[in-house]
Amino acid sequence: MRIARFSLDGNVAFGVVEGDQTDPRDTEGLTVTPIDGHPFGPFQTVGTPIPLGAVRLLAPTLPSKVVAVGRNYAEHAAELGNEVPQAPLTFLKPSTSVIGPGGEVVYPRFSADVHHEAELAVVIGRMCREVPRARVQDVILGYTCANDLTARDVQRAEAQWTRAKGFDTSCPLGPWVVTDLDPADLAITCTVGGELRQAGRTGQMVHSVADLVVHISEAMTLLPGDVILTGTPAGVGPVTVGDEVAVTIEGIGTLTNRVVKRG
Amino acid sequence: MRIARFSLDGNVAFGVVEGDQTDPRDTEGLTVTPIDGHPFGPFQTVGTPIPLGAVRLLAPTLPSKVVAVGRNYAEHAAELGNEVPQAPLTFLKPSTSVIGPGGEVVYPRFSADVHHEAELAVVIGRMCREVPRARVQDVILGYTCANDLTARDVQRAEAQWTRAKGFDTSCPLGPWVVTDLDPADLAITCTVGGELRQAGRTGQMVHSVADLVVHISEAMTLLPGDVILTGTPAGVGPVTVGDEVAVTIEGIGTLTNRVVKRG
Repeated sequence: MRIARFSLDGNVAFGVVEGDQTDPRDTEGLTVTPIDGHPFGPFQTVGTPIPLGAVRLLAPTLPSKVVAVGRNYAEHAAELGNEVPQAPLTFLKPSTSVIGPGGEVVYPRFSADVHHEAELAVVIGRMCREVPRARVQDVILGYTCANDLTARDVQRAEAQWTRAKGFDTSCPLGPWVVTDLDPADLAITCTVGGELRQAGRTGQMVHSVADLVVHISEAMTLLPGDVILTGTPAGVGPVTVGDEVAVTIEGIGTLTNRVVKRG
Repeated sequence: MRIARFSLDGNVAFGVVEGDQTDPRDTEGLTVTPIDGHPFGPFQTVGTPIPLGAVRLLAPTLPSKVVAVGRNYAEHAAELGNEVPQAPLTFLKPSTSVIGPGGEVVYPRFSADVHHEAELAVVIGRMCREVPRARVQDVILGYTCANDLTARDVQRAEAQWTRAKGFDTSCPLGPWVVTDLDPADLAITCTVGGELRQAGRTGQMVHSVADLVVHISEAMTLLPGDVILTGTPAGVGPVTVGDEVAVTIEGIGTLTNRVVKRG
């Protein structure tokens, strides 16, 4: 099932997306049917299907926190001259960094080298902590696409990555959450202006989705809607104002965002 | 004005604290009068004063994020063998790490060296970003006490401080927010089991409160209730299960928490 969050005529709702997509970057042929309430418990669809082109898609979740993982693909760690850490290297992106599909990435004034990082995002479905490995599936609502935009120059200059990876609009999420998906080995790509920049498979992750949920929840409670970003494959590089950046993950769809100048 | 958040008979409210405290660690002589709504806009007190001993104080704010600063007192940086960074060294603590006065600090299983860090906390009063230095006062609601509990062994082992400083209960805040306070040079102490461990003055900060608001809001939007932790003076050291840790700041009061074993 695909669960989106959207606005229509000033109202915001979650809804179930149905239909077949001919082009993963196009919403032609898709509809969204609102649900009563939120997707973190039992819900029903209400009302009739709305053409997806008639609504504005929003970030499919409103996370209280985004816990992200660095250097989780060996080739990417190597391209920046880093070792693969033995334990997952986790960092936080604040809720204020989240935008949705089609949302604008605002190039921050304090950086001159913002990079794209295509990532599989795990959306947590229920409050949990110290999750045993055997129960990981029970706490996951589903998966979506993410772009872990990074001010590479700031990341190099500051010991903690708070500003480098936590600036406003640095965490596009979407287009929707897919609930019935095996994350073990999905193709993941990033294009900039239609040109392929990153291409990998989630099977190349050093620490699996289950590893990450166990490791992170050992320290902190995860809440419904919280997001875990699972690291980026090789091929990261700069984006510039005007670029259209698209993250596509097999079985999910495409998250597209345009980079704009700070107004 | 002192603004607390409290629960009474299962209801949660903000309220104004009045009265004179004879002992900063005792609530004798203090009352709290509920307000209508929240303190981030115009409000009025409603109802009659309640003795503070009759309510349970909660964390005085529910931050969407806590942005904290490392090595902001030169003597503390030196005691851990670190240089003072030229720019503020910021990191994030998630909302799930926040507890209130009297709340229990649960010693995490993955550490054997949790340290206390007494800090002045700035509570943001209005949504803001790229705050000019001259406008910093306008975005601050007030100040409270914080303890930036840190798993020192984990901090040494992991490049980013996410788990070391983000574990559940690692961010006690309280006892209340003081709105009319000059943060420039306040005495700040930490005691463990009544024994003095940290004693400094906020005037020793390398980067002032205004510096920090400007620097952090350059990257990220701050929301009403968000918290900035301003760093800890020298004297950090371990806490153990059973310890009572108390952070006292001149003009604010005392934040007391007991360290307990994970159940």
